[in-house]
Amino acid sequence: MPDISQRGQAMPSSPIRKLAPLAAAAESRGVKIYKLNIGQPDIHTPQKALDALKNIDREVLEYSPSQGILSLREALVNYYKRYQIKLTPDEIIVTAGGSEAVLFAFMSCLDPGDEIIVSEPAYANYMSFAISAGAVIRTVTTTIDEGFCLPKVEKFEELINDRTKAVLICNPNNPTGYLYTQKEMNQIRDLVKKYNLYLFSDEVYREFIYTGSPYISAMHLEGIEENVVLIDSVSKRYSECGTRIGALITKNKAVRDTVMKFCQARLSPPLLGQLVAEASIEGTEQYSRDVYEEYVERRKCLIDGLNRIPGCYTPIPMGAFYTVAKLPVDDAEKFCAWCLSDFNYEGETIMMAPAAGFYSDAELGRDQVRLAYVLNKEDLKRALVVLEKALEAYNSL
Amino acid sequence: MPDISQRGQAMPSSPIRKLAPLAAAAESRGVKIYKLNIGQPDIHTPQKALDALKNIDREVLEYSPSQGILSLREALVNYYKRYQIKLTPDEIIVTAGGSEAVLFAFMSCLDPGDEIIVSEPAYANYMSFAISAGAVIRTVTTTIDEGFCLPKVEKFEELINDRTKAVLICNPNNPTGYLYTQKEMNQIRDLVKKYNLYLFSDEVYREFIYTGSPYISAMHLEGIEENVVLIDSVSKRYSECGTRIGALITKNKAVRDTVMKFCQARLSPPLLGQLVAEASIEGTEQYSRDVYEEYVERRKCLIDGLNRIPGCYTPIPMGAFYTVAKLPVDDAEKFCAWCLSDFNYEGETIMMAPAAGFYSDAELGRDQVRLAYVLNKEDLKRALVVLEKALEAYNSL
Repeated sequence: MPDISQRGQAMPSSPIRKLAPLAAAAESRGVKIYKLNIGQPDIHTPQKALDALKNIDREVLEYSPSQGILSLREALVNYYKRYQIKLTPDEIIVTAGGSEAVLFAFMSCLDPGDEIIVSEPAYANYMSFAISAGAVIRTVTTTIDEGFCLPKVEKFEELINDRTKAVLICNPNNPTGYLYTQKEMNQIRDLVKKYNLYLFSDEVYREFIYTGSPYISAMHLEGIEENVVLIDSVSKRYSECGTRIGALITKNKAVRDTVMKFCQARLSPPLLGQLVAEASIEGTEQYSRDVYEEYVERRKCLIDGLNRIPGCYTPIPMGAFYTVAKLPVDDAEKFCAWCLSDFNYEGETIMMAPAAGFYSDAELGRDQVRLAYVLNKEDLKRALVVLEKALEAYNSL
Repeated sequence: MPDISQRGQAMPSSPIRKLAPLAAAAESRGVKIYKLNIGQPDIHTPQKALDALKNIDREVLEYSPSQGILSLREALVNYYKRYQIKLTPDEIIVTAGGSEAVLFAFMSCLDPGDEIIVSEPAYANYMSFAISAGAVIRTVTTTIDEGFCLPKVEKFEELINDRTKAVLICNPNNPTGYLYTQKEMNQIRDLVKKYNLYLFSDEVYREFIYTGSPYISAMHLEGIEENVVLIDSVSKRYSECGTRIGALITKNKAVRDTVMKFCQARLSPPLLGQLVAEASIEGTEQYSRDVYEEYVERRKCLIDGLNRIPGCYTPIPMGAFYTVAKLPVDDAEKFCAWCLSDFNYEGETIMMAPAAGFYSDAELGRDQVRLAYVLNKEDLKRALVVLEKALEAYNSL
């Protein structure tokens, strides 16, 4: 049998994924699981989008243009205007989710061996896309005790060498919920400019900012317009993760022309998802407000509840719908597995993402988990009760 | 401004793509274009699939499992049974079109510098996916004069070296319409076995075989079960190219486990496309027969017509819905561009794919074009008239 590629061997299997079979086994035993482990909201997709789906009257479900349907890109132009991001449809390339946008950004901008600086804890799949492109992720560590704020610029500069080609940020952040301040964004801008780097900015959670702090997009930063590649997705804001519609946006024509070659090779982003996404953008303002209010309450419910459990601590996340919490356990990965394999409280248990998978060094997140507040408040409250009982039981073993 | 990646620079812009702006300009001048340049059929998607689309009653368009929805994979198991291909749902991984299946096969099985042997002319995007994975395509040339039959095994063996890791076939073939015989498939099997290679087999056109010759799938070959990776797609057979649903199928568990890491990184194949694809598989037998009959007639119409035009020659394609034809021109790329930029006959012109883009050495296909018989017979007949007039005019310049 021929060998598997070294790249394939190097691809991570995250701790979250290892839990899936345990969860399936628990469910087959009739245990109800509160799933706080992934960013799959229970929020309904906008009715307007679901109606648009039912009203698709095409006879041929044909390829769409490789850069995405023009009317969707035009609707996105209007969407970004609300955030003071001025674009033309040509500057927007529709992708199969934010995932494909990250992959194509890496493929187009980075050669094998090139380095990307990312603050950690970080979304684990950035590592997978970097491995796919042969690029190397170097991490600047942020800490739960400092509320995951961005380290001083010197920490970044220590990592910079001949192979450093890009900085990648996720803002608001997955997994920490951290929102970069104007000062931090300026610091990143200056760094990017000084060393002539790309700035890949994943901003898929911009709708979810809870503190009144301003949202500073990488696209707002002056003087680095040619360096910024914005990664976006409609998945989270319209709860349509399965439609697989994202976007790669940049003012840099050379990058766009290169990304388009990768887009043409895969022919077309998903047609049906594009039609749904387009219908989601306009006329859904009330939906967005309602969803926002719901997350405000969920966040309060989860954060307050977590910080009340003895030995638990989480900073208050300013955005997105995740938080990283420290638990009073020796090894959160073991604890998360145990919750699924050996524990239930009144027939219920919880599923969380061990934070180890979000750090370059698993030790850094050893006693931490990421929780996604994607369930309704009643379920969140109940999940917190179950978590408290689980911690008591685990620490009495 | 930071540099574009070398990989990005190496990605081909195929001659087909260069014609797009010329076509847009012609259309803006009011010229009607018969588009024989791409494999986008005008055939309707099955009504059953379109009805399923209208009847989607989900409230949350959520992520599907990374390997694809189980009920779709079960339906595919039944589909492959019709072709004497015995599978379990676990052996099928749903991908975003056949494109993603090719990319993930290369990523999982090939390291940078590894070589894949492909017969040419070949589907141009294989080259793009190889560049994405850092792999190298080595070509064995087939010729129009020999009807694009597979060269002797010695021609393959001449290319084999330490870095040879795979053979890639497309059967029935895009762009030539060639169908591999049992003898040729056995030859490939023996080669793959002797040198312990992967066999990537793209069989997305299996429905379209016109000669009564048997369809020999790579999955039918005995003794290389662990070497074969089947690439498939529902795009062509149900005329739903835009849904972006394909599959990567293999009995090799190590390959599947590795491919799944890439699948998990991109989270989910398109949900809506999967629902449409599932509805397309069962209860569409009459649709498939009707579509087949339609292509039989289109093929006859196009091939007969082409071979009647003075100086034109095309072998009779046995499958798919393409043919490669030799034209009486100095440079088919120039001719195809001229048809769009400088010619019309009674307000109409034709768009064809210059074959140069399907060869490693553009000279090999210099006087050839690929034509897709994806239009109805009336349009094909008219396109042939326009082509004959265009050739007369071009050769009188």
